[in-house]
Amino acid sequence: MKGFAMKKIGEIGWVEKEVPQLGSKDALVRPTAISPCTSDVHTVWAGAIGDRKDMILGHEAVGIVEAVGSEVRDFAPGDRVVVPAITPDWNSLEAQAGYSMHSGGMLAGWKFSNFKDGVFAEYFHVNDADGNMAHLPDTIDDATAVMLCDMVPTGFHGVELADVQFGDKVLVIGIGPVGLMSVAAAALRGASEIYAVGSRPNCIEIAKEYGATHIINYRNGSIEDQVMALTNGKGVDRVVIAGGDVDTMITAIKVVKPGGKIGNVNYLGEGDYVKVPRSEWGCGMAHKQIAGGLMPGGRLRMEKLMSLIETKRIDPSKLITHRFEGFEHVEDALLLMKDKPKDLIKPVVFIK
Amino acid sequence: MKGFAMKKIGEIGWVEKEVPQLGSKDALVRPTAISPCTSDVHTVWAGAIGDRKDMILGHEAVGIVEAVGSEVRDFAPGDRVVVPAITPDWNSLEAQAGYSMHSGGMLAGWKFSNFKDGVFAEYFHVNDADGNMAHLPDTIDDATAVMLCDMVPTGFHGVELADVQFGDKVLVIGIGPVGLMSVAAAALRGASEIYAVGSRPNCIEIAKEYGATHIINYRNGSIEDQVMALTNGKGVDRVVIAGGDVDTMITAIKVVKPGGKIGNVNYLGEGDYVKVPRSEWGCGMAHKQIAGGLMPGGRLRMEKLMSLIETKRIDPSKLITHRFEGFEHVEDALLLMKDKPKDLIKPVVFIK
Amino acid sequence: MKGFAMKKIGEIGWVEKEVPQLGSKDALVRPTAISPCTSDVHTVWAGAIGDRKDMILGHEAVGIVEAVGSEVRDFAPGDRVVVPAITPDWNSLEAQAGYSMHSGGMLAGWKFSNFKDGVFAEYFHVNDADGNMAHLPDTIDDATAVMLCDMVPTGFHGVELADVQFGDKVLVIGIGPVGLMSVAAAALRGASEIYAVGSRPNCIEIAKEYGATHIINYRNGSIEDQVMALTNGKGVDRVVIAGGDVDTMITAIKVVKPGGKIGNVNYLGEGDYVKVPRSEWGCGMAHKQIAGGLMPGGRLRMEKLMSLIETKRIDPSKLITHRFEGFEHVEDALLLMKDKPKDLIKPVVFIK
Amino acid sequence: MKGFAMKKIGEIGWVEKEVPQLGSKDALVRPTAISPCTSDVHTVWAGAIGDRKDMILGHEAVGIVEAVGSEVRDFAPGDRVVVPAITPDWNSLEAQAGYSMHSGGMLAGWKFSNFKDGVFAEYFHVNDADGNMAHLPDTIDDATAVMLCDMVPTGFHGVELADVQFGDKVLVIGIGPVGLMSVAAAALRGASEIYAVGSRPNCIEIAKEYGATHIINYRNGSIEDQVMALTNGKGVDRVVIAGGDVDTMITAIKVVKPGGKIGNVNYLGEGDYVKVPRSEWGCGMAHKQIAGGLMPGGRLRMEKLMSLIETKRIDPSKLITHRFEGFEHVEDALLLMKDKPKDLIKPVVFIK
Repeated sequence: MKGFAMKKIGEIGWVEKEVPQLGSKDALVRPTAISPCTSDVHTVWAGAIGDRKDMILGHEAVGIVEAVGSEVRDFAPGDRVVVPAITPDWNSLEAQAGYSMHSGGMLAGWKFSNFKDGVFAEYFHVNDADGNMAHLPDTIDDATAVMLCDMVPTGFHGVELADVQFGDKVLVIGIGPVGLMSVAAAALRGASEIYAVGSRPNCIEIAKEYGATHIINYRNGSIEDQVMALTNGKGVDRVVIAGGDVDTMITAIKVVKPGGKIGNVNYLGEGDYVKVPRSEWGCGMAHKQIAGGLMPGGRLRMEKLMSLIETKRIDPSKLITHRFEGFEHVEDALLLMKDKPKDLIKPVVFIK
Repeated sequence: MKGFAMKKIGEIGWVEKEVPQLGSKDALVRPTAISPCTSDVHTVWAGAIGDRKDMILGHEAVGIVEAVGSEVRDFAPGDRVVVPAITPDWNSLEAQAGYSMHSGGMLAGWKFSNFKDGVFAEYFHVNDADGNMAHLPDTIDDATAVMLCDMVPTGFHGVELADVQFGDKVLVIGIGPVGLMSVAAAALRGASEIYAVGSRPNCIEIAKEYGATHIINYRNGSIEDQVMALTNGKGVDRVVIAGGDVDTMITAIKVVKPGGKIGNVNYLGEGDYVKVPRSEWGCGMAHKQIAGGLMPGGRLRMEKLMSLIETKRIDPSKLITHRFEGFEHVEDALLLMKDKPKDLIKPVVFIK
Repeated sequence: MKGFAMKKIGEIGWVEKEVPQLGSKDALVRPTAISPCTSDVHTVWAGAIGDRKDMILGHEAVGIVEAVGSEVRDFAPGDRVVVPAITPDWNSLEAQAGYSMHSGGMLAGWKFSNFKDGVFAEYFHVNDADGNMAHLPDTIDDATAVMLCDMVPTGFHGVELADVQFGDKVLVIGIGPVGLMSVAAAALRGASEIYAVGSRPNCIEIAKEYGATHIINYRNGSIEDQVMALTNGKGVDRVVIAGGDVDTMITAIKVVKPGGKIGNVNYLGEGDYVKVPRSEWGCGMAHKQIAGGLMPGGRLRMEKLMSLIETKRIDPSKLITHRFEGFEHVEDALLLMKDKPKDLIKPVVFIK
Repeated sequence: MKGFAMKKIGEIGWVEKEVPQLGSKDALVRPTAISPCTSDVHTVWAGAIGDRKDMILGHEAVGIVEAVGSEVRDFAPGDRVVVPAITPDWNSLEAQAGYSMHSGGMLAGWKFSNFKDGVFAEYFHVNDADGNMAHLPDTIDDATAVMLCDMVPTGFHGVELADVQFGDKVLVIGIGPVGLMSVAAAALRGASEIYAVGSRPNCIEIAKEYGATHIINYRNGSIEDQVMALTNGKGVDRVVIAGGDVDTMITAIKVVKPGGKIGNVNYLGEGDYVKVPRSEWGCGMAHKQIAGGLMPGGRLRMEKLMSLIETKRIDPSKLITHRFEGFEHVEDALLLMKDKPKDLIKPVVFIK
């Protein structure tokens, strides 16, 4: 079968591979829509997860089940499914501990284009199929559904980590596709004022549609100053970090109230240390809680988030700015993510 | 001063009383809008809290500060304020334990028209004024604001007790004014499908506007059967009980999934026992958690909920079906609550 | 193979059956120590789970792995293991939701002597072996280890459900083997005063050794009166129910403070309704939370609890009052549980 | 009255001041036992909270009530009381939010020898007396009780922040008096293996008595290496930081498992940034939660912890290595804390 791969650090291209073998609980899926992610770009051009040879890229896909293992109960060939970016080993101690995304080791629930080939292929392999795929209803189109693989659950998890409560003032740093979903999730979780940090016009527009009440553009001064001005010097209750770098935590700590919480869902690819400013962290005494984590994967999560689309609580299709018809365009879509033109949020590639 | 009182069980009327004395941390407020509550009706005609003599009724009011005690820091005469129905003693062990509504004893944070005169008076007394009043911004009118005293926080607390999470299916039993706010809160907390139980047309209409996806009318069969049909026999993740009686818990237990949670904010005025069906409660083993509690009062709660109105996340003004101009109409408004005409949700009386 | 079975309701005896077949993730275990449980008695003589024909009894066993399926990674024949009474299907939506004990349906994580043959056999079958067995270290003997299957995790879960915090006053109702482990768990979780309800001398003695500070004997008056006398009329912070019947909840509600929590781990075999007294439940408003649930099973739980034995935080061997050598004595042990002589807590049968 | 004060940064001595005035809810206490704290040393010689002039030092005291304000209900002159180091303003928004220690601003619940004179005086002032003092029973002596002011609650809070669960492996970094109480608290909360980091013989001995199962001495290699060796490379479930500096977090992050939690109660006096190693923090994705906070103060907390002494769950008197008779020795005791002789844990000064 054909796949679009990282050939080595810095190089991409098509490869020809065997169709994956199935264990008794696995499934084989033929993708019908895929979307490249910033982490594909980091994987290839920044070497974020180390070198890989001819590894098929991609971890966001919806598709049609092609085959299932002998012990798969709930899925059959022909079923239309969404597969999350994170596909844990559910029969692991980490899953029993409530951290399935780290099954088999830190971050090891992330298998696609990391520990095995990804979804930019004619077919891809899903482990623990009954636990890691979800049936897609007719009411949700492929483009919307593919946002469920990573953008929606990652954005939403930031809000869960920050533990937003009714009436909280929430700062969302970064309004790329993940941050935009964090804005939507904060509004859906009961935040009142939502301050979204960003500067690109179409992202700002969607942030507002998703519930941001104020936009903070770093061109107008430091984020700290703007947040403090907006909150009469009191700061915010919660911060979701969905962009920036290892120094972004400095801002988050400075603007969050004592007793406040910070949720990070930004993948930090560079730098030795995430810096927590000692003094503003109350010399270790301020109860400014810091959490950061990979999105929970699995079927239940997909079903829960999907039901929010069906009931029109969220509309992730607004993230999609570019659409390609034909598998051959996966390279164009990936390069688009690399080049980040101003009007880009997320591209989707449809496969017949 | 004049007040509208319960003269004894079953009898209401006007009384003349001294203006309340202020302690060092107290405030005196002149109401500008008040609203009678079903519990005023229970207090007078069902004797729900026992006999009282010439006790001024009412616990929902917004108004203007008339005077403050010597140690009040944040309020001054002339300030426009909302006062929650529950005004805890914040310097109590119960408040330190996180249950301020029970400061001084079970439910004893509820003081108005219970342990002291209520708000249907020319002036009323607020204990711990800095902690139990909140400044009202110009952007919120009196009618909307008076819904913050009890309807909004009680309805919202039901959803907090039921611990609604993203994508949960939620059953709200009862769509009077409190239940309607529970519907709004469930939607605002991230529920997907919301099943609202009720039959009155205007309540149904508002329930839908607030986010109910399905209406369950008991005239169409048992609630259990309808919920099970809607959920393919699986039941709901969460139940909020905002109406019914001691037998309503039977329904809630039957329709909630193992691992599900039930939040009760319905004041149960009659009956010896709330009944939990043994078998459907998994013989004590089903992890169907039952919580029930009085709304949290206090200033912070008012400020947080108020911010949801300011940012247009909720609009409790939809609850108001009847408006009266003039203090003298408090009796009409109360009798309306007693008689419950079909089109009634909440009346408000404006006082010049 | 030979097994000791429930032949039908009210009748027990030996049966001859095929050795269980293994799926790819399963294991076959040869028990070396087993213990009958009160629920075996309920199953046979009260028909608690309905009729069964020739079903092998028992769900508490340690043993030696005899064989493993092709995909089992962490266990091999000859390994010494403990197997919890609850063996969930980890690749289920319920496990993903955090309620693995209800995988496949309410209570359906309980498979032994319920949905399949139990452990009173020459060999027994374990599903999801990597997730449902735990290696036993040499430092823990068989008799102590067999208490880990049900008595320890169930008793401990009561304390988790009641959410005991540092310095809490805790009432434990029932000091059979499960209740005794709840006493130990309450002490180990930071309770200060622990009131243990019981009357049998050896149970009282062990309750004190496990950390009970006061014994409440119902022969000395009602539990309510005694608790209220001991707490100056204030009641307790937490209640663990590990004995009694559907009316025991009445006592629990009466003695727990507003804001308090009740954890039930008593299997309620009879009665239509668990009764929550309306008035003492604050008319639905007292924040007296009620939780009840089946013990969490699985390997991680076994490992965590085992580590408490290894570090001498708990010593469940004190529960064992009767020891039998030889599989043929399983009937004696079971009848002992049925007859409940005064000096019985738990019997263990050792198998060569 | 006489007090022992910080005259300016780097200088201590006796001062003569007016006896404090009482507001309506305040109390005046005459100390009978006091204890200097490392933070007194930091305050004077490191200028940790900035310059102060003639500020009376000390925040750990038990004593006798001398006078109470007109609205104090539960205390009277002659009552024997313990007063926590943190005495919040309970009628504040921060207390309503559950973070009373930050009432009035970050860390501002810490008033003694910070925003007002401390307890090293003939008399000291207590705000919100009903909420900030606790009656001392005869069964607890002064020396033990004075450990309740800061050492016990701070040590215990570390374990609460780290959220220790049954069977967790816990690393406690630092076994000065606070860290030793964290060891005791971890054992009391259900930890199995407790690794205590320290090198002083008497601290090591007490750590073992309090429940440490392993001692990690940094002279034997890095903490990371030792923890990893003890845990077969898996790391610990929880870390309590009760000593070290801004770089200690690096160690904590490295040794805690994904999904693990870190609780800091070490006052970080120097350094620009607390450093979180990016890679071991899973690039922001590891669910290694970081919390740090000032001890909760107030009466309820004192009562809860006191009950643990009364029921012999903890014995903080083991911390006391030096005893002085007579107020005049407060200087000796403070200098002892400054010089930290090898055998010192905590000194107590008794005042007749």
